[in-house]
Amino acid sequence: MATTPANVMTAEDVLKNWQGHRRLTRKTIDAFPEDKLFHFSVGGMRPFADLAIEFIRMAVPTVEGVATGKWEEFQYDSPKPTTKTELLALWDAQTTALNEKFPTIPPLRFSEVDKAFGQWEMSGMGIIQYCIDNEIHHRGQGYVYLRALEIEPPPFWER
Amino acid sequence: MATTPANVMTAEDVLKNWQGHRRLTRKTIDAFPEDKLFHFSVGGMRPFADLAIEFIRMAVPTVEGVATGKWEEFQYDSPKPTTKTELLALWDAQTTALNEKFPTIPPLRFSEVDKAFGQWEMSGMGIIQYCIDNEIHHRGQGYVYLRALEIEPPPFWER
Repeated sequence: MATTPANVMTAEDVLKNWQGHRRLTRKTIDAFPEDKLFHFSVGGMRPFADLAIEFIRMAVPTVEGVATGKWEEFQYDSPKPTTKTELLALWDAQTTALNEKFPTIPPLRFSEVDKAFGQWEMSGMGIIQYCIDNEIHHRGQGYVYLRALEIEPPPFWER
Repeated sequence: MATTPANVMTAEDVLKNWQGHRRLTRKTIDAFPEDKLFHFSVGGMRPFADLAIEFIRMAVPTVEGVATGKWEEFQYDSPKPTTKTELLALWDAQTTALNEKFPTIPPLRFSEVDKAFGQWEMSGMGIIQYCIDNEIHHRGQGYVYLRALEIEPPPFWER
């Protein structure tokens, strides 16, 4: 048995895995007809556009907070998306921002405990993991919405 | 910028995160009334018991495959669960087995590429990540089933 911890993921692996999931989420957004994207849900839950906007509001601000220790809410450069085209454009801008900002996280910040957004006390990796897991969780809900609409969701294993 | 890769997760972190998710999945199973657990779904999807059994069939056999290079299907010690009590008992037995087997994975096997179950060519960490992500994804679907049944799902952030 190993006496030193087995390091199994690098920062680069985490970003790669996250962006793979984000590509799948983008396909999921795109699979919805526009009116259903913004208005349809099951069991009184939020429509998928609202869930996608939650992912956007969490991703880059979390990475910036982990990188810098400054926890600031997401700021829209333009009005909040109300069409699929606007939502996908904002999504793509965040993909680029994430690729730029993630590598600026100082290695020690992944294990350092901070109070994310003044509320959640956890390690940098812990809060990043939470963002990724939250996206997988809610995207799975979007798959149920699509099935209820008789639309085939994108294959889960394709990234 | 770091020139050496920043190692951000140890094998122990991965197991801890997974077991946290598994505790939440257990609560999700338990939140269903027994008949709904085995028979209810939305949009023609599988009932939540079937999804939970998929997680069970994947978890320990995957860890054994990563640990040993032998990819063998899950074997039931007793008949396949048909009640919530039986399903939770099987779940708990797998929790123990996972805690025992995960630490036996040789560190190098996390990065080594293998053909999991003779089909999926990926690293040991890649296939383990897939099992965890698949569980989060389908459990999110279980949350929609619960909401459609007007049952409050367990809080996502509680593990």
